Amino acid sequence: MSARAGIVITGTEVLAGRVRDRNGPWLADRLAELGIELAHITICADRREDLEAQLRFLADERVDLTITSGGLGPTADDLTAEVVARFQGRALYLDEELERRIAAIVEPLLKRWRGLDPEAIRTSTRKQATIPEGADVLGPAGTAPGLVVAPANGRDGPTTVVLPGPPGELHRLWPEAVETAAFGAATTGRSQFEHRMLRLMGIPESEIAETLRVGEERIDGLDALEVTTCLRRAELEVAVRYEPSAQAAWEGLLALVRERHGPQLFSDDGTSVDGQVAALLTDSSRTVAVAESCTGGEMAGRMSAPAGASAYFAGGVVAYANEAKARLLDVDPGLIERHGAVSPPVAGAMAEGVLARFGADAALAVTGVAGPGGGTEDKPVGYVCFAARLADGSELARDLVIPGERPDVRDRSTTLGLHILRRLLRGESADL
Amino acid sequence: MSARAGIVITGTEVLAGRVRDRNGPWLADRLAELGIELAHITICADRREDLEAQLRFLADERVDLTITSGGLGPTADDLTAEVVARFQGRALYLDEELERRIAAIVEPLLKRWRGLDPEAIRTSTRKQATIPEGADVLGPAGTAPGLVVAPANGRDGPTTVVLPGPPGELHRLWPEAVETAAFGAATTGRSQFEHRMLRLMGIPESEIAETLRVGEERIDGLDALEVTTCLRRAELEVAVRYEPSAQAAWEGLLALVRERHGPQLFSDDGTSVDGQVAALLTDSSRTVAVAESCTGGEMAGRMSAPAGASAYFAGGVVAYANEAKARLLDVDPGLIERHGAVSPPVAGAMAEGVLARFGADAALAVTGVAGPGGGTEDKPVGYVCFAARLADGSELARDLVIPGERPDVRDRSTTLGLHILRRLLRGESADL
Repeated sequence: MSARAGIVITGTEVLAGRVRDRNGPWLADRLAELGIELAHITICADRREDLEAQLRFLADERVDLTITSGGLGPTADDLTAEVVARFQGRALYLDEELERRIAAIVEPLLKRWRGLDPEAIRTSTRKQATIPEGADVLGPAGTAPGLVVAPANGRDGPTTVVLPGPPGELHRLWPEAVETAAFGAATTGRSQFEHRMLRLMGIPESEIAETLRVGEERIDGLDALEVTTCLRRAELEVAVRYEPSAQAAWEGLLALVRERHGPQLFSDDGTSVDGQVAALLTDSSRTVAVAESCTGGEMAGRMSAPAGASAYFAGGVVAYANEAKARLLDVDPGLIERHGAVSPPVAGAMAEGVLARFGADAALAVTGVAGPGGGTEDKPVGYVCFAARLADGSELARDLVIPGERPDVRDRSTTLGLHILRRLLRGESADL
Repeated sequence: MSARAGIVITGTEVLAGRVRDRNGPWLADRLAELGIELAHITICADRREDLEAQLRFLADERVDLTITSGGLGPTADDLTAEVVARFQGRALYLDEELERRIAAIVEPLLKRWRGLDPEAIRTSTRKQATIPEGADVLGPAGTAPGLVVAPANGRDGPTTVVLPGPPGELHRLWPEAVETAAFGAATTGRSQFEHRMLRLMGIPESEIAETLRVGEERIDGLDALEVTTCLRRAELEVAVRYEPSAQAAWEGLLALVRERHGPQLFSDDGTSVDGQVAALLTDSSRTVAVAESCTGGEMAGRMSAPAGASAYFAGGVVAYANEAKARLLDVDPGLIERHGAVSPPVAGAMAEGVLARFGADAALAVTGVAGPGGGTEDKPVGYVCFAARLADGSELARDLVIPGERPDVRDRSTTLGLHILRRLLRGESADL
């Protein structure tokens, strides 16, 4: 039996959807690494009674650990320390040593911003230094301290780890939280799980469902695997979690997927197509340049996202207007006139042009109709043309209709383009 | 007293953070439009007992409406219809009319994919057509029907709206759900709220906290406003919700914010800086081109994201490598040598170059150190230079150190760049 945890994300702006939560996913990864099972994530507004209800729900669900994110700031809607203190049966007090440490952090900010009110700053500092009795103090990172708060003596229930909302601050305080005695006591006896991930390109979810049904007949102990399938950015992900004793069943499943879906299975070690393309470029000491229209910069953005991308990413041209395709990528305007801006020949010319302009070793081009306007009967919204090219002249092209709304078409086109470049770099065909 | 709702997002891939939930935020907006208060969002894996626990939690919290997303697919881990049926006290049955409709949808897919197993498809179809007795059927969109399931006769509790996980499908089924009698019955008597949003650039959160404290003394009925502040992408958002009777307090707060933070307040009508820049360009019939290095395509991606962006967005150059700045943007290599690639003069030259290359009316350039490597004492990680330029020669420049990790620096640089372009288009100074 592994330790179980729940995560509470607080923030009216998160609940209302104005801010995307990045802390839940990040904490989920950290818990998985520690072998702690995550049972629930809950999100509530900055309201006392809703936060309290969620803490109560997780306690009733018998989690060993509750982690909160947010609500530690200086404004009156930041309630987490106060609500957690009451929930754990602990009084609040002003920690003067902590107040001095926060004041020392705030001092340089006072110099940077002009015309701040020093009394406002002092009030904020005192609020952030007011914490539950007996809590472990983490940090502070930014100006907010984190807290580890066990239930008061004589009480039952989960230990609460209280972390600030800004992701960078939360990341800095987490390792400190894990090191506290209260965290260790709450999560002892946790068992390790193995986590595996298969990624496939170019098959529908029903095919994997069928393969799992076949596996139930063929593979002993398959039901010891927790299998989750998910369509994501045009890829199919199959996540598998199991205790080490079920290793043979996992190996049986992997062999079955290879047998039935070998050409579609592009990753069985957790790597993404982004990471594989980066590795293929790095290992062959190649640089890449991209030419894009409908994806509008997202292809370049995704390729340049990893730290160290400058080793292989030369740059790109976003040729949204037709004239830009001619002026910056040397696409023959006659070609555009004859075939249209969204056409396999224009995609090929864009790849050739960007390869030459950047003096790169590899190039990827994408042109398409992202919608919602601009579709025709021949070339509906979602019609996208790809071309990948290497300096030695080898190339790979593909055109198809991608389903979805404008953001989906842009996102899925980016993924598909990376797959086509991956196949060219591996010397494979474009048949996805 | 308005109707209250809870949202349950199911999916091991969402709980584990491998897929980002887009349905919670979207549904939150729809509920707000209907004047239904959203109290909780909960996320669980594809496990019967956890999904049931969350439905129970929301019922105990006395919500009037529970909306679920996900778990309607063809695989065995798709459990929502079954769990909701049991929770509402309703038996499952195979709806043969629905089975025929899903089969008709699947037929063209059978032709598109090669070598699918027809028996696998039939099993999937039957699973998706097996629904709770007495439920309203929505759609289907994709192959999954949505459901509206009231508690069985003689039972209490919220009505459940069951929607598929893929956002496009969920969006299509939502209006149908709202039209059902069961939805209406669950949410009658809802009161309307006003929602306002102030956006400020260039002040810390503690300053708004102080302004709210001043407001408490000066403005009658300020406590009838629900105020939430949030730092987001380098901007400070102040969201205010109130019942119509508190209109005067809202107007008082708006006047106070204008008085104390006029130059920093860039939006009081819900518009984003992205939308304002798009409108400024459209209204002046200007086109824009962007030159970027550290943001790696994200600036172009954000400008081209709105539908209709082609009216003003000409394109961009992602000049990641130094040679690309010379080759594609005509930046004098001597300038790079003298000042470094990350410097105000190079940002200025990039803006000038991209303006000319694209023949655009406005240009924005950004060059910086996104990290984690590449920082120096003079130019640490986060040091970013911006230049905006119009065809008439007017320009605006700014350089500063942006805090955060690589993704934060990229994201915040993009936001800041948009603010600088906005100020130039409005004929203002760069003083943010």
